[in-house]
Amino acid sequence: MSNPKIQDTITLEDARRVIDAAIARAEEIGQPQDIAVVDAGGNLKAHVRMDTANIGSIHIAINKAYTSIAFQTQTKDLTEATRPTGDLYGLNDAHGGRIVVFPGGIPLVRDGVIVGAIGVSTGSIEEDQTVAEAGAAAL
Amino acid sequence: MSNPKIQDTITLEDARRVIDAAIARAEEIGQPQDIAVVDAGGNLKAHVRMDTANIGSIHIAINKAYTSIAFQTQTKDLTEATRPTGDLYGLNDAHGGRIVVFPGGIPLVRDGVIVGAIGVSTGSIEEDQTVAEAGAAAL
Amino acid sequence: MSNPKIQDTITLEDARRVIDAAIARAEEIGQPQDIAVVDAGGNLKAHVRMDTANIGSIHIAINKAYTSIAFQTQTKDLTEATRPTGDLYGLNDAHGGRIVVFPGGIPLVRDGVIVGAIGVSTGSIEEDQTVAEAGAAAL
Amino acid sequence: MSNPKIQDTITLEDARRVIDAAIARAEEIGQPQDIAVVDAGGNLKAHVRMDTANIGSIHIAINKAYTSIAFQTQTKDLTEATRPTGDLYGLNDAHGGRIVVFPGGIPLVRDGVIVGAIGVSTGSIEEDQTVAEAGAAAL
Repeated sequence: MSNPKIQDTITLEDARRVIDAAIARAEEIGQPQDIAVVDAGGNLKAHVRMDTANIGSIHIAINKAYTSIAFQTQTKDLTEATRPTGDLYGLNDAHGGRIVVFPGGIPLVRDGVIVGAIGVSTGSIEEDQTVAEAGAAAL
Repeated sequence: MSNPKIQDTITLEDARRVIDAAIARAEEIGQPQDIAVVDAGGNLKAHVRMDTANIGSIHIAINKAYTSIAFQTQTKDLTEATRPTGDLYGLNDAHGGRIVVFPGGIPLVRDGVIVGAIGVSTGSIEEDQTVAEAGAAAL
Repeated sequence: MSNPKIQDTITLEDARRVIDAAIARAEEIGQPQDIAVVDAGGNLKAHVRMDTANIGSIHIAINKAYTSIAFQTQTKDLTEATRPTGDLYGLNDAHGGRIVVFPGGIPLVRDGVIVGAIGVSTGSIEEDQTVAEAGAAAL
Repeated sequence: MSNPKIQDTITLEDARRVIDAAIARAEEIGQPQDIAVVDAGGNLKAHVRMDTANIGSIHIAINKAYTSIAFQTQTKDLTEATRPTGDLYGLNDAHGGRIVVFPGGIPLVRDGVIVGAIGVSTGSIEEDQTVAEAGAAAL
């Protein structure tokens, strides 16, 4: 087409490869998951809810991915800083209910540049984190 | 597992088959699309944003699918009724900004029962509708 | 720094040049304006409210820029389609109150790629549009 | 013009001078920042997101500035009072997600009167505070 278009930071092919690797890990540990991939602008690129995964985790997974883009960090690295005694206590109240400060959100990095993020939710924090890591490693 | 689990109305395998059929039709007509599938509870089951499709259409696609479940109807069948002269004028203002009243949302039906819905957005209303129809037919 | 960073689609230098050109045009026509620039992800890059411009137009300007990115279009091109008799009637109710369908929002294009958008609000639609055009031309 | 107009508490020229001083300090310490200035009514007057600064910090910076006006205080002076053992525990939940209780928000004072506020976010709390202080000193 001749009219100008937006250039994606991450392709759907990338996003699906990330999600498929995450699904494979989730199946390996026997924990159904919600899995979301956002682009560098924090906008949803792809999402799946595995069978019997939590409905409430749709938003948590998307928000974990969003948080990883919003602060260019893994969500697990926000946990200690936002506890009641931490430097950033209150951060999760200061952004309209979109910030998640426990494990499961990881930036997707290519050639030293953050191009998107993955968020995983439904399992324990260890399960969410390992599934997110498997996804992130597949970019 | 021994603990009770929610029974999904639509499997991820179903949702992905629906989405892949919709993608195939979108590619055929040369129009990148946002495509969402929700379950019978109106909750997101899977979503893809094809490359260069609209960011703004993420929500519109999800809300088209939601509207199809919410009112057990194709979104195109709400258009005339909600115009300023229609019987349901104001419906789209009456549900917290989630109702879409133009084409692109279609219930997914199996054995005479609505088990989910597909929503498609980015193209013209004719393009959104034909892609949604291709997806719905693949259930 | 060695840790990965997000790559901006539009620099602050770009955004300020766009805003300064818009301010110059606003002064030329004697109409104070709210002016916002967002990046390709729809996230605010820079904003100014000229003296005596509308407080209510802060959000309208930001949302005009957002809408231009969200649908990869000038906001003025949504007007007819979303009127009560239009194909997309109801679009502005279907996205959580962020869609603006009257003039003043324009995509910022570089080398055939949309890299951001400008939104202008406070004046008449003609005044908003001419100021947005002056800003967009300065990219 | 003959029709009545709102009188701004802070001019755009003031706001940009404050922001430029903040940018200079941010560059000095090598930490890209989101920087927002609001007027005495808590409404955004100007904002910049420096290149590679956080998307999530757009809202945090604006909300830090808002909080400084809202409670006529530096945000750092709310930290201890709002911790779980403090007198104002829960304050950050009591205002629709707009209150920030860690450093980086400072009122802008002229002739003994608060005329606006600056908010800074992306860096550590020490970095945010020093950049906000540099901005506030430039009023």
